Formats: sequence, C-alpha cells, structure tokens
Amino acid sequence: MLTFYFARNTCALATHVALEDADADYEAVRIDFASEEQRKPTYLAINPKGRVPSLVTPQGILTETPALLAWVAQTYPEARLAPLGDPFAFAKLQAFNAYICSTVHVAHAHRMRGYRWADDAAAIEAMKRKVPESVTNAFLLIEQDMLEGPYVMGRDYSVADPYLFTLAQWLELDGVDLSRLPRVVEHRARMAERPSVKRAIAAEMANPA
Amino acid sequence: MLTFYFARNTCALATHVALEDADADYEAVRIDFASEEQRKPTYLAINPKGRVPSLVTPQGILTETPALLAWVAQTYPEARLAPLGDPFAFAKLQAFNAYICSTVHVAHAHRMRGYRWADDAAAIEAMKRKVPESVTNAFLLIEQDMLEGPYVMGRDYSVADPYLFTLAQWLELDGVDLSRLPRVVEHRARMAERPSVKRAIAAEMANPA
Repeated sequence: MLTFYFARNTCALATHVALEDADADYEAVRIDFASEEQRKPTYLAINPKGRVPSLVTPQGILTETPALLAWVAQTYPEARLAPLGDPFAFAKLQAFNAYICSTVHVAHAHRMRGYRWADDAAAIEAMKRKVPESVTNAFLLIEQDMLEGPYVMGRDYSVADPYLFTLAQWLELDGVDLSRLPRVVEHRARMAERPSVKRAIAAEMANPA
Repeated sequence: MLTFYFARNTCALATHVALEDADADYEAVRIDFASEEQRKPTYLAINPKGRVPSLVTPQGILTETPALLAWVAQTYPEARLAPLGDPFAFAKLQAFNAYICSTVHVAHAHRMRGYRWADDAAAIEAMKRKVPESVTNAFLLIEQDMLEGPYVMGRDYSVADPYLFTLAQWLELDGVDLSRLPRVVEHRARMAERPSVKRAIAAEMANPA
C-alpha cells in the first residue's frame, strides 16, 4: 500500500495518472495549498521541500515527478509505461521528463511563484509578463521536435504522456496561443479521454482537504 | 564511440565526470559559449535547445543531465554508478538529480540568465540579488536532508556525486556563505581529488574551442 500526497492543479497529477495506469494500490491524500498545508510541520516531516507530489512507499518516501514516474514504470513493468529494456529509449523518455521539470515547469512557475527568485513586486510583475513568451517557446520545442506522435515517445504510451498532459492543462492561464501548438492540443484532448486520466482528475476533485 | 558536447563551467561537467568514471570510449568537443556557438545552426542541428550537454550515441542524440547520468549508469553497469537493481534506491538517486536540475540549477541560473524569465533590466538585477539566498536555501536542504555521506546516496558513489560537485563549484560566485555548508564543502573537496574528476576538468580546460 502506497500513500500519495498531491495538491489540486499541480504537477502531482502526472504521477497520479501513472499510478492509475499502473493499477497501483494506493491512497491519495490531498494537501491544501490554499491554507499552506504544505508548509506545516506534519507535511514537512514527509517532504521537507514543502512541495508535492510525495509518495510514501514501504521502503521510504519518494519525491520529484521525474523520479516518481520512472519508479512507477519500473515497479509495475506489466503496465508497460516505459521502455525499460532499452537504456537509450529510456534516456529519451527521461530527457523529455527532465525538460518538463527544469524548463517548461520553471517557465510556468514564474507566473505565480516569482517570489522564489526575486523579492520586489515590480520584478515579480516583470516575470509574469514574460510567461506567455517563455512557456510558448518551451512548448514550441515540444510541438516541433519532441512530441513524436501519437504519444510523446511515438507509438507507445509512456509516463511522459501524463507529464505533458499535466503541464498542457495550464496553457490558457499561461497566456499561450493554442493555435501555435496543434499537436500538443490534440495530444491533450486525446489524453483527457483516457480512463486513467479521468479517474485521477475525478479523485483530485472529490478528495476532501 | 560517443561524441560529447560540453561548454566550460557548465553542468556538462557532471556527465563528463560520469563518462570518465565509466571508462567510456568518447570524444569531447567544446562548444564556446563566449562566441554563442550553442546558438549557431551547426550545434542547433545536434541540440535544438541550444544547451549543453549533448551526447551523440550510435542510437541517436541524448540531452539533459539527469537523463545522461542514468544512461551512463545503465550503459556501463560494471562501473556501479547507480543502484540499478533496486527501483526505490534508483528513484532516490533520480529524485536527487531532479532536485538539482529543477531547483538548484534554476536558482543559480537567475544570476547570469535572468533574461530567460524577464525582459527589463531592473527585474534581472532583482533576480541577481536573490541568488545568494535562493541558492543557499537549496543547498541547505542538501546539507541537512539529502547528502547522506560520505557520498550523496550514502556508502556508495553514484552519478549524483559529480552532479552535486558540479553545482557546488559555483557556490562562491553565487554568494553563498560556505560555513553554512560544511558537509557539501567536504564532499566537494573530496570529489576534487578523484581521478575521474581531475581528468574531466583537465580535458575541459585543455580542449580547444
């Protein structure tokens, strides 16, 4: 039995979907960002970073989406969520996930979390203004060079797909012109119909604080 | 035969050290950031992100440090650079590397690459001013919660060690008070004596543009 800590409208959705894809036995627990539950001692004892997702496993606690996605794929190999037998293909998958966490998510985070990187209000507003451009550029690279189609890695679904889907949820709020990203938008619409995605989203919306 | 593209004083050093640890057969090629070689068509054809590192393998091109580090560990298992047989331990290693790329490196990047996230000069200066605080906080978490000792993962050396070493090279320029990070500083000094680290640094300094 696993315990999965998430917050709504965060990158935790990617791992949540992967756990559903894997048919893992887990309990999902919602952390309420509105009341800053992620900075309270109870949660910091689980994840001292004060972030989501966190996954409590029988061996210990895991954090960081790319690590969790690879863990789910390796722990439930029968779900075929990554090319586990091919180090090159696995590295391509991991490169995609690293790009999402270090470039795409970081560009997005400057809209609501600019205080991480500057103290004055004018600088934080300047960061917000650039988000449409920086997020668009990050997604254009995915659109043109990385999303092989129909899935991120090509023919086979993998844990990269819920990660892309999760970040693509925020495109409108990030001020991105969707007409420049037809392949990403088509992937997002197709993913939204996937039963594992529907179950994870329904659970996140239903879960009490 | 592999071709490894790096630039001096970048995160590429982590993979460079790992290739040396693995005794891999590779050629190192320096990309000159001073002349913006990374934005020229020849290099963009290798890596459309215009970043380093990139690794040309017989199967194709790989990018992103966490993906490359795991690839080196999986491709040269005899070098014992990761706990390959234990998905939980591998995920702990990957979580460390994901934290470095998405939080530590990003905090650092606001010193010299603020233009990625804001256009106006005052905002870019405001970002620079916060780097000592944000990089210190990121490293304090490593100091207190993540660096198990003597190596990142505990008793066994892994590809997380050259990654931590690489980012720790920049602490002084990032304005961090080293006295708050005694364990990180001790790890850095010990790593600097490692033959693979010495070889990688010597190659980066000797390599012509």
